[in-house]
Amino acid sequence: MEQEFASSHLENAVNELSRLPGIGRKTALRLALHILRQEEKAGVALGQAIIDMRRNVRYCSMCHNISDSETCAVCGDPQRDKSTVCVVENVKDVMSIENTRQYAGVYHVLGGVISPMDGIGPDQLEIDSLIERVDNGGVKEVILALSPTMEGDTTGFYIYRRMGTRPVVMTQLARGVSVGNEIEYTDEITLGRSLINRIPFASSFDNR
Amino acid sequence: MEQEFASSHLENAVNELSRLPGIGRKTALRLALHILRQEEKAGVALGQAIIDMRRNVRYCSMCHNISDSETCAVCGDPQRDKSTVCVVENVKDVMSIENTRQYAGVYHVLGGVISPMDGIGPDQLEIDSLIERVDNGGVKEVILALSPTMEGDTTGFYIYRRMGTRPVVMTQLARGVSVGNEIEYTDEITLGRSLINRIPFASSFDNR
Repeated sequence: MEQEFASSHLENAVNELSRLPGIGRKTALRLALHILRQEEKAGVALGQAIIDMRRNVRYCSMCHNISDSETCAVCGDPQRDKSTVCVVENVKDVMSIENTRQYAGVYHVLGGVISPMDGIGPDQLEIDSLIERVDNGGVKEVILALSPTMEGDTTGFYIYRRMGTRPVVMTQLARGVSVGNEIEYTDEITLGRSLINRIPFASSFDNR
Repeated sequence: MEQEFASSHLENAVNELSRLPGIGRKTALRLALHILRQEEKAGVALGQAIIDMRRNVRYCSMCHNISDSETCAVCGDPQRDKSTVCVVENVKDVMSIENTRQYAGVYHVLGGVISPMDGIGPDQLEIDSLIERVDNGGVKEVILALSPTMEGDTTGFYIYRRMGTRPVVMTQLARGVSVGNEIEYTDEITLGRSLINRIPFASSFDNR
Protein backbone atom coordinates (compact mmCIF):
# COMPACT_ATOMS: atom_id res chain seq x y z
CA MET A 1 0.00 0.00 0.00
CA GLU A 2 1.14 3.49 -0.81
CA GLN A 3 1.94 6.03 1.86
CA GLU A 4 -1.24 7.86 2.83
CA PHE A 5 0.43 11.23 3.37
CA ALA A 6 3.19 12.99 1.48
CA SER A 7 5.24 13.38 4.68
CA SER A 8 5.97 10.88 7.46
CA HIS A 9 6.07 13.79 9.96
CA LEU A 10 2.54 14.78 8.93
CA GLU A 11 1.41 11.17 9.06
CA ASN A 12 2.83 10.72 12.55
CA ALA A 13 1.12 13.89 13.84
CA VAL A 14 -2.21 12.84 12.29
CA ASN A 15 -1.88 9.39 13.91
CA GLU A 16 -1.24 10.90 17.33
CA LEU A 17 -3.97 13.55 17.05
CA SER A 18 -6.54 10.98 15.94
CA ARG A 19 -5.98 9.04 19.18
CA LEU A 20 -7.70 11.87 21.05
CA PRO A 21 -11.36 11.26 21.94
CA GLY A 22 -13.83 12.59 19.37
CA ILE A 23 -11.09 13.34 16.83
CA GLY A 24 -11.19 11.17 13.72
CA ARG A 25 -8.56 11.03 10.97
CA LYS A 26 -10.22 13.73 8.89
CA THR A 27 -10.33 16.18 11.79
CA ALA A 28 -6.77 15.22 12.77
CA LEU A 29 -5.59 16.02 9.24
CA ARG A 30 -7.44 19.33 9.29
CA LEU A 31 -5.80 20.23 12.62
CA ALA A 32 -2.34 19.16 11.41
CA LEU A 33 -2.61 21.22 8.21
CA HIS A 34 -3.80 24.18 10.29
CA ILE A 35 -0.72 23.84 12.51
CA LEU A 36 1.48 23.74 9.41
CA ARG A 37 -0.07 26.95 8.13
CA GLN A 38 0.66 28.78 11.40
CA GLU A 39 4.06 30.10 12.41
CA GLU A 40 6.54 27.49 13.61
CA LYS A 41 6.49 29.17 17.05
CA ALA A 42 2.77 28.46 17.50
CA GLY A 43 3.01 24.78 16.60
CA VAL A 44 6.00 24.26 18.87
CA ALA A 45 4.20 26.07 21.72
CA LEU A 46 1.22 23.72 21.39
CA GLY A 47 3.37 20.60 21.40
CA GLN A 48 5.48 21.85 24.29
CA ALA A 49 2.41 22.80 26.36
CA ILE A 50 1.08 19.25 26.02
CA ILE A 51 4.43 17.73 27.02
CA ASP A 52 4.87 20.15 29.94
CA MET A 53 1.38 19.46 31.21
CA ARG A 54 1.79 15.70 31.05
CA ARG A 55 5.19 15.81 32.74
CA ASN A 56 4.57 18.46 35.38
CA VAL A 57 0.97 18.31 36.56
CA ARG A 58 0.88 16.92 40.08
CA TYR A 59 -1.92 15.67 42.27
CA CYS A 60 -2.63 17.16 45.71
CA SER A 61 -1.47 14.73 48.41
CA MET A 62 -4.53 15.60 50.47
CA CYS A 63 -7.49 15.71 48.07
CA HIS A 64 -5.97 14.27 44.85
CA ASN A 65 -7.11 17.24 42.80
CA ILE A 66 -4.82 18.48 40.03
CA SER A 67 -2.15 20.81 41.39
CA ASP A 68 1.11 22.54 40.57
CA SER A 69 2.53 21.63 43.98
CA GLU A 70 2.40 19.09 46.82
CA THR A 71 -0.83 20.66 48.12
CA CYS A 72 -3.49 22.15 45.85
CA ALA A 73 -4.70 25.75 46.02
CA VAL A 74 -7.94 24.76 47.76
CA CYS A 75 -6.33 22.60 50.47
CA GLY A 76 -3.65 25.26 50.99
CA ASP A 77 -6.16 28.10 51.39
CA PRO A 78 -6.50 29.04 55.09
CA GLN A 79 -9.98 30.47 54.35
CA ARG A 80 -11.40 27.09 53.35
CA ASP A 81 -13.26 25.03 55.95
CA LYS A 82 -11.20 21.84 56.37
CA SER A 83 -13.95 20.16 58.43
CA THR A 84 -16.23 19.82 55.40
CA VAL A 85 -15.06 17.42 52.67
CA CYS A 86 -16.91 17.19 49.37
CA VAL A 87 -16.36 13.84 47.64
CA VAL A 88 -16.37 14.05 43.84
CA GLU A 89 -15.70 11.67 40.98
CA ASN A 90 -13.11 13.70 39.11
CA VAL A 91 -11.19 16.92 38.61
CA LYS A 92 -13.86 18.37 36.32
CA ASP A 93 -16.45 18.05 39.09
CA VAL A 94 -14.21 20.13 41.38
CA MET A 95 -14.17 22.83 38.70
CA SER A 96 -17.97 22.66 38.33
CA ILE A 97 -18.52 23.06 42.06
CA GLU A 98 -15.89 25.83 42.34
CA ASN A 99 -17.70 27.66 39.53
CA THR A 100 -20.89 27.79 41.63
CA ARG A 101 -18.97 29.89 44.24
CA GLN A 102 -21.29 28.33 46.84
CA TYR A 103 -18.79 26.04 48.53
CA ALA A 104 -16.21 26.98 51.14
CA GLY A 105 -15.07 23.51 52.20
CA VAL A 106 -12.43 21.22 50.72
CA TYR A 107 -12.60 18.27 48.29
CA HIS A 108 -11.72 14.64 47.91
CA VAL A 109 -11.32 13.42 44.32
CA LEU A 110 -12.06 9.69 43.99
CA GLY A 111 -10.65 9.39 40.49
CA GLY A 112 -13.75 7.58 39.21
CA VAL A 113 -16.77 5.65 40.46
CA ILE A 114 -17.28 1.97 41.13
CA SER A 115 -18.17 0.34 37.82
CA PRO A 116 -17.89 -3.45 37.56
CA MET A 117 -18.69 -3.17 33.82
CA ASP A 118 -15.48 -1.17 33.31
CA GLY A 119 -13.53 -3.27 35.81
CA ILE A 120 -13.28 -0.42 38.33
CA GLY A 121 -13.54 -1.57 41.95
CA PRO A 122 -13.19 0.39 45.20
CA ASP A 123 -9.46 -0.41 45.38
CA GLN A 124 -8.73 1.62 42.26
CA LEU A 125 -10.39 4.69 43.77
CA GLU A 126 -9.22 7.05 46.50
CA ILE A 127 -11.63 5.61 49.06
CA ASP A 128 -9.08 4.24 51.57
CA SER A 129 -7.45 7.67 51.66
CA LEU A 130 -10.85 9.27 52.36
CA ILE A 131 -11.45 6.97 55.33
CA GLU A 132 -7.91 7.71 56.53
CA ARG A 133 -8.56 11.45 56.21
CA VAL A 134 -11.65 11.11 58.42
CA ASP A 135 -9.72 8.93 60.90
CA ASN A 136 -7.02 11.59 61.16
CA GLY A 137 -9.67 13.80 62.75
CA GLY A 138 -11.02 17.26 62.07
CA VAL A 139 -13.62 16.21 59.47
CA LYS A 140 -17.19 16.89 60.61
CA GLU A 141 -19.13 16.46 57.36
CA VAL A 142 -18.61 14.40 54.22
CA ILE A 143 -20.72 15.56 51.27
CA LEU A 144 -21.19 12.94 48.57
CA ALA A 145 -21.38 14.98 45.36
CA LEU A 146 -21.60 12.02 43.00
CA SER A 147 -23.66 11.76 39.83
CA PRO A 148 -27.18 10.39 40.40
CA THR A 149 -26.44 7.32 38.28
CA MET A 150 -26.26 3.62 39.12
CA GLU A 151 -22.45 3.85 39.49
CA GLY A 152 -22.56 7.09 41.47
CA ASP A 153 -25.19 5.73 43.84
CA THR A 154 -23.28 2.45 44.28
CA THR A 155 -20.10 4.35 45.09
CA GLY A 156 -21.92 6.61 47.55
CA PHE A 157 -23.49 3.66 49.29
CA TYR A 158 -20.14 1.85 49.45
CA ILE A 159 -18.49 4.87 51.07
CA TYR A 160 -21.43 5.22 53.47
CA ARG A 161 -21.01 1.59 54.56
CA ARG A 162 -17.22 1.91 54.87
CA MET A 163 -17.62 5.03 57.01
CA GLY A 164 -19.57 2.88 59.50
CA THR A 165 -19.96 4.44 62.91
CA ARG A 166 -17.31 7.11 62.48
CA PRO A 167 -18.56 10.36 64.04
CA VAL A 168 -19.08 12.25 60.79
CA VAL A 169 -22.24 13.65 59.21
CA MET A 170 -22.78 12.25 55.70
CA THR A 171 -24.84 14.28 53.26
CA GLN A 172 -25.46 14.24 49.53
CA LEU A 173 -26.43 16.80 46.90
CA ALA A 174 -30.12 17.73 46.84
CA ARG A 175 -32.04 16.01 44.06
CA GLY A 176 -34.99 17.75 42.48
CA VAL A 177 -36.18 19.75 39.53
CA SER A 178 -33.42 21.68 37.76
CA VAL A 179 -33.56 25.45 37.99
CA GLY A 180 -34.87 26.77 34.66
CA ASN A 181 -36.35 23.42 33.57
CA GLU A 182 -40.07 23.03 33.01
CA ILE A 183 -41.98 20.57 35.18
CA GLU A 184 -43.44 19.03 32.03
CA TYR A 185 -40.00 17.90 30.90
CA THR A 186 -38.70 16.68 34.26
CA ASP A 187 -38.47 12.90 34.41
CA GLU A 188 -40.97 11.24 36.72
CA ILE A 189 -38.43 9.74 39.14
CA THR A 190 -36.88 13.14 39.79
CA LEU A 191 -40.31 14.77 40.00
CA GLY A 192 -41.57 12.10 42.43
CA ARG A 193 -38.51 12.47 44.66
CA SER A 194 -38.73 16.24 44.66
CA LEU A 195 -42.33 15.98 45.86
CA ILE A 196 -41.41 13.61 48.69
CA ASN A 197 -38.39 15.75 49.67
CA ARG A 198 -40.20 19.07 49.28
CA ILE A 199 -38.69 22.04 51.11
CA PRO A 200 -40.13 25.18 52.79
CA PHE A 201 -41.11 27.72 50.10
CA ALA A 202 -38.80 30.59 50.98
CA SER A 203 -35.63 28.47 51.37
CA SER A 204 -34.86 28.35 47.65
CA PHE A 205 -34.36 32.11 47.62
CA ASP A 206 -31.98 32.13 50.57
CA ASN A 207 -28.65 32.07 48.81
CA ARG A 208 -29.41 34.45 45.97
CA MET B 1 -10.10 36.97 39.32
CA GLU B 2 -9.28 33.54 40.60
CA GLN B 3 -7.27 31.04 38.58
CA GLU B 4 -9.60 29.10 36.30
CA PHE B 5 -7.73 25.82 36.60
CA ALA B 6 -6.03 24.15 39.52
CA SER B 7 -2.75 23.89 37.60
CA SER B 8 -0.95 26.44 35.43
CA HIS B 9 0.36 23.57 33.25
CA LEU B 10 -3.20 22.43 32.60
CA GLU B 11 -4.29 25.99 31.95
CA ASN B 12 -1.49 26.53 29.46
CA ALA B 13 -2.31 23.31 27.57
CA VAL B 14 -6.02 24.23 27.45
CA ASN B 15 -5.14 27.69 26.13
CA GLU B 16 -2.98 26.25 23.37
CA LEU B 17 -5.43 23.49 22.41
CA SER B 18 -8.33 25.94 22.23
CA ARG B 19 -6.45 27.94 19.58
CA LEU B 20 -7.05 25.06 17.14
CA PRO B 21 -9.95 25.53 14.71
CA GLY B 22 -13.24 24.07 15.92
CA ILE B 23 -11.91 23.42 19.42
CA GLY B 24 -13.47 25.54 22.15
CA ARG B 25 -12.36 25.77 25.77
CA LYS B 26 -14.67 22.98 26.92
CA THR B 27 -13.37 20.57 24.30
CA ALA B 28 -9.79 21.67 25.00
CA LEU B 29 -10.28 20.88 28.70
CA ARG B 30 -11.78 17.50 27.86
CA LEU B 31 -8.79 16.70 25.62
CA ALA B 32 -6.29 17.88 28.24
CA LEU B 33 -7.88 15.79 30.99
CA HIS B 34 -7.89 12.81 28.63
CA ILE B 35 -4.17 13.29 28.01
CA LEU B 36 -3.59 13.45 31.78
CA ARG B 37 -5.43 10.16 32.26
CA GLN B 38 -3.23 8.40 29.69
CA GLU B 39 0.32 7.20 30.31
CA GLU B 40 2.97 9.94 30.32
CA LYS B 41 4.53 8.30 27.24
CA ALA B 42 1.36 8.85 25.16
CA GLY B 43 1.04 12.53 26.03
CA VAL B 44 4.71 13.20 25.33
CA ALA B 45 4.44 11.34 21.99
CA LEU B 46 1.54 13.57 20.94
CA GLY B 47 3.34 16.77 21.88
CA GLN B 48 6.57 15.63 20.24
CA ALA B 49 4.79 14.58 17.03
CA ILE B 50 3.31 18.07 16.70
CA ILE B 51 6.69 19.73 17.28
CA ASP B 52 8.48 17.35 14.89
CA MET B 53 5.91 17.92 12.19
CA ARG B 54 6.05 21.70 12.48
CA ARG B 55 9.86 21.73 12.50
CA ASN B 56 10.59 19.08 9.88
CA VAL B 57 7.90 19.09 7.22
CA ARG B 58 9.33 20.50 4.02
CA TYR B 59 7.75 21.64 0.78
CA CYS B 60 8.69 20.16 -2.59
CA SER B 61 10.86 22.66 -4.49
CA MET B 62 9.08 21.67 -7.72
CA CYS B 63 5.35 21.43 -6.88
CA HIS B 64 5.22 22.91 -3.33
CA ASN B 65 3.39 19.88 -1.99
CA ILE B 66 4.25 18.71 1.53
CA SER B 67 7.34 16.51 1.55
CA ASP B 68 9.96 14.90 3.74
CA SER B 69 12.71 15.90 1.32
CA GLU B 70 13.76 18.44 -1.31
CA THR B 71 11.52 16.77 -3.91
CA CYS B 72 8.18 15.14 -3.03
CA ALA B 73 7.32 11.49 -3.70
CA VAL B 74 5.15 12.37 -6.72
CA CYS B 75 7.72 14.61 -8.43
CA GLY B 76 10.46 12.07 -7.68
CA ASP B 77 8.49 9.14 -9.13
CA PRO B 78 9.87 8.21 -12.60
CA GLN B 79 6.49 6.65 -13.47
CA ARG B 80 4.65 9.97 -13.24
CA ASP B 81 4.07 11.98 -16.41
CA LYS B 82 5.97 15.25 -15.91
CA SER B 83 4.38 16.83 -18.99
CA THR B 84 0.97 17.07 -17.30
CA VAL B 85 0.70 19.49 -14.37
CA CYS B 86 -2.43 19.59 -12.23
CA VAL B 87 -2.85 22.97 -10.47
CA VAL B 88 -4.55 22.71 -7.07
CA GLU B 89 -5.32 25.09 -4.24
CA ASN B 90 -3.75 23.15 -1.39
CA VAL B 91 -2.13 20.00 -0.05
CA LYS B 92 -5.48 18.42 0.81
CA ASP B 93 -6.58 18.67 -2.82
CA VAL B 94 -3.47 16.70 -3.85
CA MET B 95 -4.54 13.97 -1.41
CA SER B 96 -8.11 14.00 -2.77
CA ILE B 97 -6.91 13.61 -6.36
CA GLU B 98 -4.33 10.95 -5.41
CA ASN B 99 -7.13 9.02 -3.69
CA THR B 100 -9.04 8.77 -6.98
CA ARG B 101 -6.07 6.78 -8.44
CA GLN B 102 -7.05 8.28 -11.82
CA TYR B 103 -4.15 10.70 -12.23
CA ALA B 104 -0.65 9.87 -13.40
CA GLY B 105 0.71 13.39 -13.89
CA VAL B 106 2.32 15.77 -11.39
CA TYR B 107 0.98 18.67 -9.34
CA HIS B 108 1.46 22.35 -8.65
CA VAL B 109 0.16 23.55 -5.26
CA LEU B 110 -0.79 27.24 -5.32
CA GLY B 111 -1.11 27.57 -1.56
CA GLY B 112 -4.52 29.24 -1.82
CA VAL B 113 -6.73 31.05 -4.30
CA ILE B 114 -7.02 34.73 -5.17
CA SER B 115 -9.35 36.29 -2.61
CA PRO B 116 -9.35 40.09 -2.29
CA MET B 117 -11.72 39.72 0.71
CA ASP B 118 -9.02 37.85 2.62
CA GLY B 119 -6.24 40.04 1.22
CA ILE B 120 -4.78 37.22 -0.89
CA GLY B 121 -3.46 38.40 -4.25
CA PRO B 122 -1.60 36.50 -7.00
CA ASP B 123 1.77 37.46 -5.49
CA GLN B 124 1.11 35.40 -2.35
CA LEU B 125 0.42 32.30 -4.43
CA GLU B 126 2.78 30.00 -6.33
CA ILE B 127 1.72 31.39 -9.71
CA ASP B 128 5.05 32.87 -10.83
CA SER B 129 6.68 29.51 -10.14
CA LEU B 130 4.02 27.79 -12.27
CA ILE B 131 4.72 30.10 -15.22
CA GLU B 132 8.45 29.50 -14.70
CA ARG B 133 7.86 25.75 -14.70
CA VAL B 134 6.09 25.99 -18.03
CA ASP B 135 8.84 28.26 -19.43
CA ASN B 136 11.47 25.71 -18.42
CA GLY B 137 9.88 23.39 -20.99
CA GLY B 138 8.49 19.89 -20.97
CA VAL B 139 5.00 20.81 -19.81
CA LYS B 140 2.32 20.01 -22.42
CA GLU B 141 -0.87 20.33 -20.39
CA VAL B 142 -1.89 22.38 -17.36
CA ILE B 143 -5.06 21.11 -15.66
CA LEU B 144 -6.79 23.69 -13.48
CA ALA B 145 -8.31 21.61 -10.66
CA LEU B 146 -9.66 24.55 -8.67
CA SER B 147 -12.94 24.69 -6.74
CA PRO B 148 -15.88 25.94 -8.86
CA THR B 149 -16.28 29.00 -6.65
CA MET B 150 -15.88 32.72 -7.35
CA GLU B 151 -12.32 32.63 -5.99
CA GLY B 152 -11.38 29.42 -7.78
CA ASP B 153 -12.75 30.71 -11.10
CA THR B 154 -10.97 34.06 -10.66
CA THR B 155 -7.69 32.29 -9.95
CA GLY B 156 -8.12 29.98 -12.93
CA PHE B 157 -8.88 32.90 -15.24
CA TYR B 158 -5.86 34.84 -13.91
CA ILE B 159 -3.55 31.87 -14.58
CA TYR B 160 -5.10 31.45 -18.05
CA ARG B 161 -4.36 35.11 -18.86
CA ARG B 162 -0.83 34.93 -17.43
CA MET B 163 -0.12 31.82 -19.50
CA GLY B 164 -0.83 33.90 -22.63
CA THR B 165 0.42 32.37 -25.84
CA ARG B 166 2.71 29.80 -24.23
CA PRO B 167 2.39 26.51 -26.16
CA VAL B 168 0.54 24.58 -23.47
CA VAL B 169 -2.94 23.04 -23.44
CA MET B 170 -5.04 24.39 -20.57
CA THR B 171 -7.90 22.25 -19.29
CA GLN B 172 -10.13 22.25 -16.23
CA LEU B 173 -12.07 19.61 -14.28
CA ALA B 174 -15.36 18.55 -15.84
CA ARG B 175 -18.37 20.17 -14.20
CA GLY B 176 -21.65 18.30 -14.06
CA VAL B 177 -23.95 16.23 -11.91
CA SER B 178 -22.20 14.39 -9.09
CA VAL B 179 -22.06 10.62 -9.32
CA GLY B 180 -24.66 9.21 -6.90
CA ASN B 181 -26.58 12.48 -6.59
CA GLU B 182 -30.18 12.75 -7.72
CA ILE B 183 -31.04 15.17 -10.52
CA GLU B 184 -33.79 16.61 -8.32
CA TYR B 185 -31.22 17.85 -5.82
CA THR B 186 -28.64 19.15 -8.30
CA ASP B 187 -28.51 22.96 -8.38
CA GLU B 188 -29.79 24.54 -11.57
CA ILE B 189 -26.51 26.15 -12.66
CA THR B 190 -24.70 22.81 -12.50
CA LEU B 191 -27.62 21.05 -14.20
CA GLY B 192 -27.79 23.70 -16.94
CA ARG B 193 -24.05 23.47 -17.61
CA SER B 194 -24.12 19.69 -17.68
CA LEU B 195 -26.84 19.83 -20.33
CA ILE B 196 -24.85 22.27 -22.48
CA ASN B 197 -21.64 20.26 -22.04
CA ARG B 198 -23.32 16.87 -22.46
CA ILE B 199 -21.05 13.96 -23.41
CA PRO B 200 -21.51 10.78 -25.53
CA PHE B 201 -23.49 8.19 -23.53
CA ALA B 202 -20.92 5.39 -23.26
CA SER B 203 -18.00 7.61 -22.22
CA SER B 204 -18.96 7.74 -18.54
CA PHE B 205 -18.38 3.98 -18.26
CA ASP B 206 -14.92 4.08 -19.81
CA ASN B 207 -12.73 4.24 -16.75
CA ARG B 208 -14.61 1.83 -14.54
